[in-house]
Amino acid sequence: MSGTHHLLGDPHHDGSEVYVPRGTPQLGDVVPVRFRVPAAGDERALWVRTVRDGEPRFLPARLDRVDAHERWYVAEVPVHNPVTGYRALLDEPAGYRWLNGSGVHARDVPDAHDFRLTVHAPAPGWLDGAVVYQVFPDRFAREGTGPGAHEGPPQGPLPGWALPARWDDEPIASGPGTSRQYFGGHLAGIERHLDHLDRLGVDVLYLTPVFPGRSNHRYDATTFDHVDPLLGGDGALASLSAAVHARGMRIVGDLTTNHTGSGHEWFARAQADAASDEASYYYWTDAAPGYVGWLEHASLPKLNYSAGSLAHRMIDGPESVVGRWLGAPTSLDGWRIDVANMTGRYGSDDFTRAVARTIRRTMAQVNPDAVLISEHFHDAGADLAGDGWHANMNYSGFTRPVWTWLVAPGSDRGFLGMPVGIPRRDGASMVAAMRDFDSAVPWSVTQHQWNMLGSHDTARLRTVVGSPEAVEVAAGLLFTYPGTPALFAGDEGGLTGVTGENARVPMPWAAMSSSDDPRWDARTFDVYRSLIALRAGSRALREGGLRWAVVEPDAVAYLRETPDERVLVLVARAPWSGTDLPAHLLGPGRDPENLYGGADLPVHIGALHVPGDGPGVQVWRLA
Amino acid sequence: MSGTHHLLGDPHHDGSEVYVPRGTPQLGDVVPVRFRVPAAGDERALWVRTVRDGEPRFLPARLDRVDAHERWYVAEVPVHNPVTGYRALLDEPAGYRWLNGSGVHARDVPDAHDFRLTVHAPAPGWLDGAVVYQVFPDRFAREGTGPGAHEGPPQGPLPGWALPARWDDEPIASGPGTSRQYFGGHLAGIERHLDHLDRLGVDVLYLTPVFPGRSNHRYDATTFDHVDPLLGGDGALASLSAAVHARGMRIVGDLTTNHTGSGHEWFARAQADAASDEASYYYWTDAAPGYVGWLEHASLPKLNYSAGSLAHRMIDGPESVVGRWLGAPTSLDGWRIDVANMTGRYGSDDFTRAVARTIRRTMAQVNPDAVLISEHFHDAGADLAGDGWHANMNYSGFTRPVWTWLVAPGSDRGFLGMPVGIPRRDGASMVAAMRDFDSAVPWSVTQHQWNMLGSHDTARLRTVVGSPEAVEVAAGLLFTYPGTPALFAGDEGGLTGVTGENARVPMPWAAMSSSDDPRWDARTFDVYRSLIALRAGSRALREGGLRWAVVEPDAVAYLRETPDERVLVLVARAPWSGTDLPAHLLGPGRDPENLYGGADLPVHIGALHVPGDGPGVQVWRLA
Repeated sequence: MSGTHHLLGDPHHDGSEVYVPRGTPQLGDVVPVRFRVPAAGDERALWVRTVRDGEPRFLPARLDRVDAHERWYVAEVPVHNPVTGYRALLDEPAGYRWLNGSGVHARDVPDAHDFRLTVHAPAPGWLDGAVVYQVFPDRFAREGTGPGAHEGPPQGPLPGWALPARWDDEPIASGPGTSRQYFGGHLAGIERHLDHLDRLGVDVLYLTPVFPGRSNHRYDATTFDHVDPLLGGDGALASLSAAVHARGMRIVGDLTTNHTGSGHEWFARAQADAASDEASYYYWTDAAPGYVGWLEHASLPKLNYSAGSLAHRMIDGPESVVGRWLGAPTSLDGWRIDVANMTGRYGSDDFTRAVARTIRRTMAQVNPDAVLISEHFHDAGADLAGDGWHANMNYSGFTRPVWTWLVAPGSDRGFLGMPVGIPRRDGASMVAAMRDFDSAVPWSVTQHQWNMLGSHDTARLRTVVGSPEAVEVAAGLLFTYPGTPALFAGDEGGLTGVTGENARVPMPWAAMSSSDDPRWDARTFDVYRSLIALRAGSRALREGGLRWAVVEPDAVAYLRETPDERVLVLVARAPWSGTDLPAHLLGPGRDPENLYGGADLPVHIGALHVPGDGPGVQVWRLA
Repeated sequence: MSGTHHLLGDPHHDGSEVYVPRGTPQLGDVVPVRFRVPAAGDERALWVRTVRDGEPRFLPARLDRVDAHERWYVAEVPVHNPVTGYRALLDEPAGYRWLNGSGVHARDVPDAHDFRLTVHAPAPGWLDGAVVYQVFPDRFAREGTGPGAHEGPPQGPLPGWALPARWDDEPIASGPGTSRQYFGGHLAGIERHLDHLDRLGVDVLYLTPVFPGRSNHRYDATTFDHVDPLLGGDGALASLSAAVHARGMRIVGDLTTNHTGSGHEWFARAQADAASDEASYYYWTDAAPGYVGWLEHASLPKLNYSAGSLAHRMIDGPESVVGRWLGAPTSLDGWRIDVANMTGRYGSDDFTRAVARTIRRTMAQVNPDAVLISEHFHDAGADLAGDGWHANMNYSGFTRPVWTWLVAPGSDRGFLGMPVGIPRRDGASMVAAMRDFDSAVPWSVTQHQWNMLGSHDTARLRTVVGSPEAVEVAAGLLFTYPGTPALFAGDEGGLTGVTGENARVPMPWAAMSSSDDPRWDARTFDVYRSLIALRAGSRALREGGLRWAVVEPDAVAYLRETPDERVLVLVARAPWSGTDLPAHLLGPGRDPENLYGGADLPVHIGALHVPGDGPGVQVWRLA
């Protein structure tokens, strides 16, 4: 076995406050930007290359601070463009190297992974320490109280599409029935179970759509003017919102800016009258069904932003759909935008960034404290300059790489719409992918990305990784990594599901009160609750920078750091060799303080002996 | 020493006609796209991932052809967006891999290096086989004929800025005098020496600016309405253009769309009258000198495209500056755009791509066969979708990587504006950088990029690499690599120069007639002439695809291939170990045919024995 080594010999920078002052710069500002270089480095000088109006400029960095272990450089970077890219040039005897967001490079590299300063305001401050809890309304809780509330099929008159299901039925995994199986969840049921969220420690409730549709998922809205009566209508949403806010939590909605349902009132008018305003809201074709549907689904006609009138109705201004629900009495704290990657994109049309900027402008008018999150499963870098979406559901930079590291060996799970299974890769692959996608966006976006281990659109984490131990390792990453942890309701109880549809399991409330009901894993709940509390207790874990320390096939470790705190996170999917890290990472006169996992971090002269146990999660505060 | 191995075990695709049909697709077309996989591959299937309206789609590839050595797959890719990105997914037992323009990846990677289909027309067909010869008019040849024409200082009345120089004087390397030293070159002198271009084999004359300025370089135009009388005026340009065209050559001009000189007639009007149309052409500031200069040079006020009237005057329509000179009688065949990377970019303004598209539209009106080339020393990928600049002066993807491989050991030359010298790197670094920058643009751009080994803005190649042998290796790359070879007049004679200014050496006409005048290297001229003839004699070298075969510290080799020709290029900067390549690269019943360099490529059973000599260039036709 080849020896393990650590990565702390590399120079480092990220956008966290150890290196870049807090706050959003304005055009014309000059921002001091800091870089750390280990003492063993042989650089003759460090320069900062910025790109200004398309042209690189080299700023000398001044040696600001030196100790036995590190040299710190600082350069004054002018903020001349709305997004200012920069990287460090290490002038070294063997030839210069670049330091950018993807690492250190001994050759020229394109600008895609340069660090970035942006003048665009980041997500609202309340998201900094938040943990998001995603609820699929049909599957969380019914309206009724009492012991029988979550038993038989839902009561009351049902729309034609609904196939009533018992609360304990397994969600259909695939095929047409998936969207019709109706479990009867209700907003009042969510409101009644907010104690569960409190117990877990989450503080943002993200609801998938609540407008009426012709399906249990409601991504096929028939109107944006009122909340689905099946969920309790506008009043139930206002009541839930008030209850959420009364607990100091936030509530975020879900909007399909990309399409409506074919049953939408706008689409009815559009089809009835080609001269109507609404007719300009859609893309019409000669071929059947006569209009463009999202991914060719006739049930989801795609919206067309090339005429201005749709924007006015949907996204622009306080009276638009976007604006109206952010105001009282529903007072949503923001929107998650469905299919944001395709919104406004069709053929030669590309209005995506304009749509995002317009929604931001509307939010500024109605609720400047609102958040705007995109759904983009793929390379979202080009859409995340900070002027539009505050952050993205980070499948590419988090979910996908973590799944490839932790997928159960031999799994035959499909991989998020790809025609292949989830490959099992080593730590280096996972980390390289995370760095590549992370570094395509400004740090102010990175630190708010919605990191997930699954969602209503994916198989369940527990099913993908195959064991509660692997779930703990995944959750260890989720709650200690830069960004906003976002979990799908039920992950905390080890719910399972082989597809996105199958994963929309009704919350097994009855099982939670039993200590050994196999439908609810109380040990996993404790893991989640403990990790959320761990994060809440450490500003470094919530807002600190990220330095990779160890990248091995079966283990990775990283430092999260603020100016006055340093935390070491170690996650291992299997036993590994362990390694040594420099003892100077410890604050003066301190011993490592285990914050999670319980293992010692023995200190011998000059070294911290990182243990090689696994699988598991260990977190130590070093300074 | 570790053993040399070749890269032909990787699956491959590029945009050349071996893999993608010739011609520019239109929106709605379906393009069959082919991939080759070596027989030793263990893929279960190959899929093509395209990105459509921002969303990946997976197209099954059909196994189209199988022989003992390779499997060929084909997929039908719909051209739904103006630029359609795609990559191959290799479904392999050890986990899928991606094949994109930068290579094969065993993890997820962002979209930046995906292959691309574009509906935008490529550069005109005459550029496909062209070699560009760059002339700096003050330094090529004077008007007068006869033995004394290139001796003393220029005759006649001179403008105040001009410091007359003798033709044999060394150009000043740095400082204010560089732009004032006036050697007296004239367009008639160029016209009289077109035989030199013919002898060399080049067919595009690219002239740096010919409009009057207050400098020898004329990038500080005082008008765009007439040609500098010092160069012979409009008539001399029309005459030169006619002479060039009579030889079947082309002539390309050079335009500063980014700025004018401070002596420009527009700027005079702008300063005199703040209400004038011309006042809207510039950026005004409160700080001295009262306006924005390019890179803070007060002599070069930056142009402002935010008001429409500058566009009308400068770039939009047949009467604009761009349009006028493309028409008779000067009939330029295109423009090289100075500082294209900054044109239209200032602070929160970013009109660069709009400027480029407008120029293309003007060209379509006046001369649809004209070419548009940008100057962008850095990462030009985002500006090269094909809708604007046809191609770029390819410093990033060619000049810089080649210099780092061939720079003289121990050189202390500065590196193109960087505060460090040129590092000497190995073949893997060079190739990785070339692949990264090449693959950020559609192949239709790659194959027209202006590859250079130097220009009027750089030290001379001969000075950088230090020996005629290294010049030959560099030229071997230049004339066999995808793109348009572009050389700075005099490189073919081994001229020297330590800076861009010092490199603007007057052509030593007298020295050329002597066989041993140290000012002209007749052997290098023969090398250039032979390599240009080599390229002219092989369509694979001009238009073929590119497969990397060998990447070693001191040698690289690649295949250039069309459907009916395969050429192997080997360049070595030093002796190396040599290697074997598969014998099936040879066409049936063929022996390797040496086209350059004279070495044998011995064939033993199953292998081509690539020799390890160096430095040198060898080219063989294999099929």
